[in-house]
Amino acid sequence: MSNNAPLTPESPRGSLLLVGFGPGSEEHLTHRAKWAIEHAEIIIGYRTYIDLVRPLIQNKTIIQTGMTEEIERASQAVDLAFSGKTVALVSSGDVGIYGMAGLAYEVLADRGYTGTEIDVEVIPGVTALSACASILGAPLMHDFASISLSDLLTPWEVIRKRLRAAAEADFVIALYNPKSSKRVRQIEEAREIMMEVRDHDTPVGIVKSAMREGENIVISNLSEMLTHPIGMLTTILVGNSQTRIIAGKMVTPRGYQKKYNIHTGDRLTKSKTL
Amino acid sequence: MSNNAPLTPESPRGSLLLVGFGPGSEEHLTHRAKWAIEHAEIIIGYRTYIDLVRPLIQNKTIIQTGMTEEIERASQAVDLAFSGKTVALVSSGDVGIYGMAGLAYEVLADRGYTGTEIDVEVIPGVTALSACASILGAPLMHDFASISLSDLLTPWEVIRKRLRAAAEADFVIALYNPKSSKRVRQIEEAREIMMEVRDHDTPVGIVKSAMREGENIVISNLSEMLTHPIGMLTTILVGNSQTRIIAGKMVTPRGYQKKYNIHTGDRLTKSKTL
Repeated sequence: MSNNAPLTPESPRGSLLLVGFGPGSEEHLTHRAKWAIEHAEIIIGYRTYIDLVRPLIQNKTIIQTGMTEEIERASQAVDLAFSGKTVALVSSGDVGIYGMAGLAYEVLADRGYTGTEIDVEVIPGVTALSACASILGAPLMHDFASISLSDLLTPWEVIRKRLRAAAEADFVIALYNPKSSKRVRQIEEAREIMMEVRDHDTPVGIVKSAMREGENIVISNLSEMLTHPIGMLTTILVGNSQTRIIAGKMVTPRGYQKKYNIHTGDRLTKSKTL
Repeated sequence: MSNNAPLTPESPRGSLLLVGFGPGSEEHLTHRAKWAIEHAEIIIGYRTYIDLVRPLIQNKTIIQTGMTEEIERASQAVDLAFSGKTVALVSSGDVGIYGMAGLAYEVLADRGYTGTEIDVEVIPGVTALSACASILGAPLMHDFASISLSDLLTPWEVIRKRLRAAAEADFVIALYNPKSSKRVRQIEEAREIMMEVRDHDTPVGIVKSAMREGENIVISNLSEMLTHPIGMLTTILVGNSQTRIIAGKMVTPRGYQKKYNIHTGDRLTKSKTL
């Protein structure tokens, strides 16, 4: 394997490391993310995320804030990096998927960053849809859409439109942030939209706290999905028209069975272009 | 961090480890994927992938096959696991996203697997869209759709429909398998569909061989994207209507700037539910 970004000693100027540490189990952390957490002088994150990586953090400054203080976290991280520190701003999953990487860049723009003043590195991680898919079986073998049901920053009409488009075009659908204690109607409406165009027995995987304490896995279907607990820590994967259950797992065939005999590997028809 | 799946010694019966090793740099491999490759007795994979992980493989049986021999690879892996071996079937990226995990389950079904005969574990990795996004900046901060342009196993009409749906609903769009030497028309048609409904200056990131030898990164736009090289090793990310360039990086705002002053962190309007 090539190491494109060598594990260099601390740079003489500030560094902002935007780190996704995966689902929360150290096993599913990448080596680069672990290096970043160990290498940084200052770790900044949402309190719950800091707790997940605390065993890796020793003799460092830790700045932990509450859930709604994203701008404060990003601002502190950027400003400390500009002051010459090596700062890791950490998110669970992939910091580049619904994570803090974008807000960090927005704050960098606000501070007049031109791309040269500090080093910025986004370190990707295993995102929730990957972690959940691996536990459920293999539901993401075909085209998929990822939709957050949080309408805190996005108008619900935009989200509705995406749900309908994804359902009609037969995407596998990953739902992030399906429900909170105050936000309960969105998952009901999302299900109604999907029920209008999809078979009611379409498999639905409901995963709470994938690969961390409290993990809970349910494979249900569109009809019955709301009879199971769904909350802040849940990610939902809705199959496409081909998704089926194999030995208790949720599997979306890629389409080999249309052109090949799965038993023998022989081609059934002449294939088109590669 | 909790270790949900302890690193146990070899089980007395066969194991099938379906392993995603990420973009190819050892830095972006998860600890669990590295363990699986080191722990397995037999490693099976597409020749190019085996070469990427070869430094980790010592004193093991290696079975490497060509690009179109997926069913053969999956069948060998399943049959060897049934014979009591510990087998790792490896893919780059995430084995659960357009990878070999689904085909392995289809072969398991063909062999009458009920969920108990052998141990099967899907080990997720950093998928291409995560790796490419991290290099490009932060384009996946909002809802996204992932579409493979390969019509080898999927009718082109289905792919066209998904492209149009994703473009109209303003998803960020990840295009896997955009082009091969024989399959050149699909990316042109995909661009035409997106040009019909999206601004022509929508940012487009074109990444070849993310985080491995030969990496090449271009940030272009819908108008000009086809003037850049695109091939078998390329993944493309097309922004949504909000995606912009910040210090040379491609960033999709989450929407904080609509409700908050990014400079001060102060709320501009009262927010709705959380």
